[in-house]
Amino acid sequence: TIYGITPTYARLAQKADLTRLSQTLMLVRNFHWVIIEDSETKTNLVENLLKESTLKYTHLNVKTQKSKHSTASGVEQRNAALSWLRDHLRQVEDKKGVVYFMDDDNTYALKVFDEMRKIKKVGVWPVGIVGGMRVEMPLVTDGKVTGFNAVWKSFRPFPIDMAGFAINATLFLNHPEAKFSRKVQSGFQESEILKYFTTREELEPLADNCTKVYAWHTRTQKPSITNPKKLKTPPIPDDHIEV
Amino acid sequence: TIYGITPTYARLAQKADLTRLSQTLMLVRNFHWVIIEDSETKTNLVENLLKESTLKYTHLNVKTQKSKHSTASGVEQRNAALSWLRDHLRQVEDKKGVVYFMDDDNTYALKVFDEMRKIKKVGVWPVGIVGGMRVEMPLVTDGKVTGFNAVWKSFRPFPIDMAGFAINATLFLNHPEAKFSRKVQSGFQESEILKYFTTREELEPLADNCTKVYAWHTRTQKPSITNPKKLKTPPIPDDHIEV
Ligand SMILES: O=c1ccn([C@@H]2O[C@H](COP(=O)(O)OP(=O)(O)O)[C@@H](O)[C@H]2O)c(=O)[nH]1
Ligand SMILES: O=c1ccn([C@@H]2O[C@H](COP(=O)(O)OP(=O)(O)O)[C@@H](O)[C@H]2O)c(=O)[nH]1
Ligand SMILES: [Mn+2]
Ligand SMILES: [Mn+2]
Repeated sequence: TIYGITPTYARLAQKADLTRLSQTLMLVRNFHWVIIEDSETKTNLVENLLKESTLKYTHLNVKTQKSKHSTASGVEQRNAALSWLRDHLRQVEDKKGVVYFMDDDNTYALKVFDEMRKIKKVGVWPVGIVGGMRVEMPLVTDGKVTGFNAVWKSFRPFPIDMAGFAINATLFLNHPEAKFSRKVQSGFQESEILKYFTTREELEPLADNCTKVYAWHTRTQKPSITNPKKLKTPPIPDDHIEV
Repeated sequence: TIYGITPTYARLAQKADLTRLSQTLMLVRNFHWVIIEDSETKTNLVENLLKESTLKYTHLNVKTQKSKHSTASGVEQRNAALSWLRDHLRQVEDKKGVVYFMDDDNTYALKVFDEMRKIKKVGVWPVGIVGGMRVEMPLVTDGKVTGFNAVWKSFRPFPIDMAGFAINATLFLNHPEAKFSRKVQSGFQESEILKYFTTREELEPLADNCTKVYAWHTRTQKPSITNPKKLKTPPIPDDHIEV
């Protein structure tokens, strides 16, 4: 089973982004979507979207505790998913699986899911359009990761985007302490979780020795909405329409 | 058959956008994707993407003739697709179908394709996040379109986005003159094509009397790439990697 872990939050393009992502996931075999809303309560929008999909899913929620020390987002959500996962794996017979942290606005080719089924411990691959580069990628020599092509904070222990690795699920049972942290600087969440499971040398290069791009850090443009009060003939209110 | 007509052009997020759109289309029954590159020649990127999908498709190309009088994009491409469509329909036994003009960066829920199978002549429905609104939509009274909620150029003959309508394919045989034009101002392409086939009064409201959003005019944020020449330790060149 591939466990895709996706934090999500309310915004104008949320349903569009979740819709196209869910439609991709519907084509992935043995996929379980763990979606965690950054909110006090679960919303009908996300609940109905999940129900109407053909996906196997788990719907959670936890609100980010914003503080002046940290603007990190996704931390509590991914940690909530990891707690759920550990409980779940302890209960099920078949504990085999892979954990992939998937942002709701990224783009995933179906091939990335085939790649991660080969993982023994931690697999890595390139990510398109991220960190100021066309592609951030592990550099591979003789089938081993020997460096990284990354220019944004290249001093990161693992200069890899969240979309560029997946982890054998069973390892989360072996390392019950492994989690994300609000205390690390931006860009260090990936390194924070990876440090529990692997070293740079142990990383398993996938996607044809890290030469193929199967995941992209796309972002959806924030829409600009005209203020109806500034219009001579304002439109009919549309708050009753779910967008 | 639903004929989806999609112009596309080379840019950093092109493959990502086409990948996620193609993965949605793979879930649509009886779908034929007509994809037209805005380029002098067909690219390997688009050709391979189509080949590796499970889609039925037709791959065309025609370069936009930019002039100082018009910055319209997609016109020659959609017209090339319409020429192909007319030839195709004249040859095939089953001429039944629907034509839908689909931008490569928009978001389409599977339900929009179910709706358009009900079309007799021209069907319409709301489009999310477009024209400065949460949702642009036809207003429906007693099952008839009686107006439009639109604030951007609301004087358009049909104030509807390209994603908000589809047309019975056979009508393109009845109206061999119907095509898009480089000569109309921005926002008037939809009105330009619709005028051949329908009037405001004849429009068929779909998606629950135009109360549901099944298509969104999403846009993918243009990525900003760091100039390697400005870096102390520039990365290894990555031009050999297709992104
Ligand atoms: O306040 C927030 C901001 C983001 N996210 C989620 O965290 C992930 C990463 O956020 P975003 O895509 O905005 O980050 P970026 O594109 O800047 O990496 C996405 O799945 C978001 O839905 C969240 O749950 N709460
Ligand atoms: O020079 C161009 C610009 C755009 N397009 C295509 O025309 C459609 C509409 O373009 P875009 O999404 O950029 O327009 P907007 O989001 O502004 O409506 C898309 O399918 C693009 O791929 C094109 O073929 N050539
Ligand atoms: Mn993002
Ligand atoms: Mn667009």
